[in-house]
Amino acid sequence: MKKSDVVSAILSERQTALPRHSSAQAFAPSNIALCKYWGKRDQELNLPVTSSFSISLGNKGATTELSLSDQDRVYLNDEKINLESAFGKRLLAFLNLFRVNHDLHFVIKTQTNIPVGAGLASSACGFASLTRALNNLFGWELQEHELSIFARLGSGSACRSLWQGFVEWHAGLQENGMDSYGERIAAEWPELRIGLLILSEKEKKISSRDAMQRTVTTSPLYSAWPAKVSHDLSKLKQAVQSKDFILLGETAESNAMTMHATMLSAWPTVCYFLPETISAMQVIWKLREEGLMIFFTQDAGPNLKLLFLEKDRDAVQKYFPGIEVVDPYCKSKNA
Amino acid sequence: MKKSDVVSAILSERQTALPRHSSAQAFAPSNIALCKYWGKRDQELNLPVTSSFSISLGNKGATTELSLSDQDRVYLNDEKINLESAFGKRLLAFLNLFRVNHDLHFVIKTQTNIPVGAGLASSACGFASLTRALNNLFGWELQEHELSIFARLGSGSACRSLWQGFVEWHAGLQENGMDSYGERIAAEWPELRIGLLILSEKEKKISSRDAMQRTVTTSPLYSAWPAKVSHDLSKLKQAVQSKDFILLGETAESNAMTMHATMLSAWPTVCYFLPETISAMQVIWKLREEGLMIFFTQDAGPNLKLLFLEKDRDAVQKYFPGIEVVDPYCKSKNA
Repeated sequence: MKKSDVVSAILSERQTALPRHSSAQAFAPSNIALCKYWGKRDQELNLPVTSSFSISLGNKGATTELSLSDQDRVYLNDEKINLESAFGKRLLAFLNLFRVNHDLHFVIKTQTNIPVGAGLASSACGFASLTRALNNLFGWELQEHELSIFARLGSGSACRSLWQGFVEWHAGLQENGMDSYGERIAAEWPELRIGLLILSEKEKKISSRDAMQRTVTTSPLYSAWPAKVSHDLSKLKQAVQSKDFILLGETAESNAMTMHATMLSAWPTVCYFLPETISAMQVIWKLREEGLMIFFTQDAGPNLKLLFLEKDRDAVQKYFPGIEVVDPYCKSKNA
Repeated sequence: MKKSDVVSAILSERQTALPRHSSAQAFAPSNIALCKYWGKRDQELNLPVTSSFSISLGNKGATTELSLSDQDRVYLNDEKINLESAFGKRLLAFLNLFRVNHDLHFVIKTQTNIPVGAGLASSACGFASLTRALNNLFGWELQEHELSIFARLGSGSACRSLWQGFVEWHAGLQENGMDSYGERIAAEWPELRIGLLILSEKEKKISSRDAMQRTVTTSPLYSAWPAKVSHDLSKLKQAVQSKDFILLGETAESNAMTMHATMLSAWPTVCYFLPETISAMQVIWKLREEGLMIFFTQDAGPNLKLLFLEKDRDAVQKYFPGIEVVDPYCKSKNA
């Protein structure tokens, strides 16, 4: 199955329609998975082996301005992207899915307020904001789950980045992925905070895409991952419904460590731990022993995302003065 | 099955015999597993879930002097051990297996030339040297595999610490563990070197015994470990037979990372990585990228054991000036 078939199926008669506007823009929040997306069952369509579960990063994310032009141009944080680069080609391939004729070109200007390529889901919010901007430009008026499917074609976890709050990405069973999309969970949890602990803003040596593929292909432990996810997903949903913060934190931290465990057992080893990452974990474990309810999660990068409640914010910031505290429900002015 | 039943079965009529000497001593080398022992199928008898494979640390290990006395006294590196402590009780329980009457008491003086409790198999060489010393004191003249079984009753990996060179610990199938012992592999590899990279001499927070148990009980990935071991064991034997150093190094490093992966996925997480551990790994990976054939293994502690060949010794010491280089075949004066 090709991506273009999925787009045709969703847009059907609208596919040949020209854009309704000459420009559009949209914001999408970054998201962090509390239960990770780790492993694809379909490389082309970014279909996951398992479902996953995320929380948005409020007003941290990407804003994309899209306009029609005589040739394609892409700017990321005011820097022109070489369209012959790996990232440029990937973006063009995504755009080509929606180009109704050869003369239709786009200028894309994406601004992120998170570091790029450091495990803060920059490609997720990037593709999600681009998808919403395309929907606005063309005037498709797609349903939310359809937008989510489009975003997934750009980057898997982008399908979770369209909303504020908790989102479950249903793995789905269908080969065409029509049942594989993000769904917003109605529950609110206003006291929840995320602390971004940036330990390195360097681009990572191995992309999450490659790390995932190497893990699935070479880790002898990966076979045990889907059962772990299934277990953690139900615990997370229970935690959110009953506002059981310890259950949420323990499950998220354990899920992240287990994902990194699968990477460490890959060959060559995929290690996103920096010395600073371990130091920060040691502080967190010590604080928890002392009674402060703080947990962390870590994605395919060295940085940690701390999980805590607003009541403990001062205590957490005392030990991690450099963190940026995010309210997952904070609406951005662009949202 | 109890430990005392195993001892009775092996010593049979010799069990009531009094010691032939009033004192005896023995040395046993420490050993590092290239394929790890991680998980027990029998807690009482220290029977492992899988076989394992080790290399000795030459003249690094433990020397135990044993003598008859009117009361039990134990000295570890000249320090008197409290026999009410956990370690003291464990040692007494081991001694009780061989005490032919209530009036028989021992003074044990063990000297190690490796840090204790830092993942350098101090308890392995300690129990192995004590076992050899008991054999000498009582004049049992046991076969090597019988000595190995006795050593195992003290500490699992002690059963691999009785010889120089490569040793395979056969997991065995029998409930009484009579087929679970170490066996020396005849192959020699004089060019092989081990570099002890001591990053912390502090006693670890969680013993390997507890870490192992927590991993088996709580890690969702542990179920995939035995298949990994089985795969690695055959690769290591092949590497030793064909003197294929890269195969040896890659297999040992991958096996160690996978063991640590199972620990990281346990809950609460067992993490023996210090920031310094990660820094050292990063240096090793970089050197390897640059063509220097250096690998590492790591046990239940923060320190690394580097694996390289004598021809690369100077290059390795340039980057790790603090390491102690061990020749696994170097005979100690006490051996």
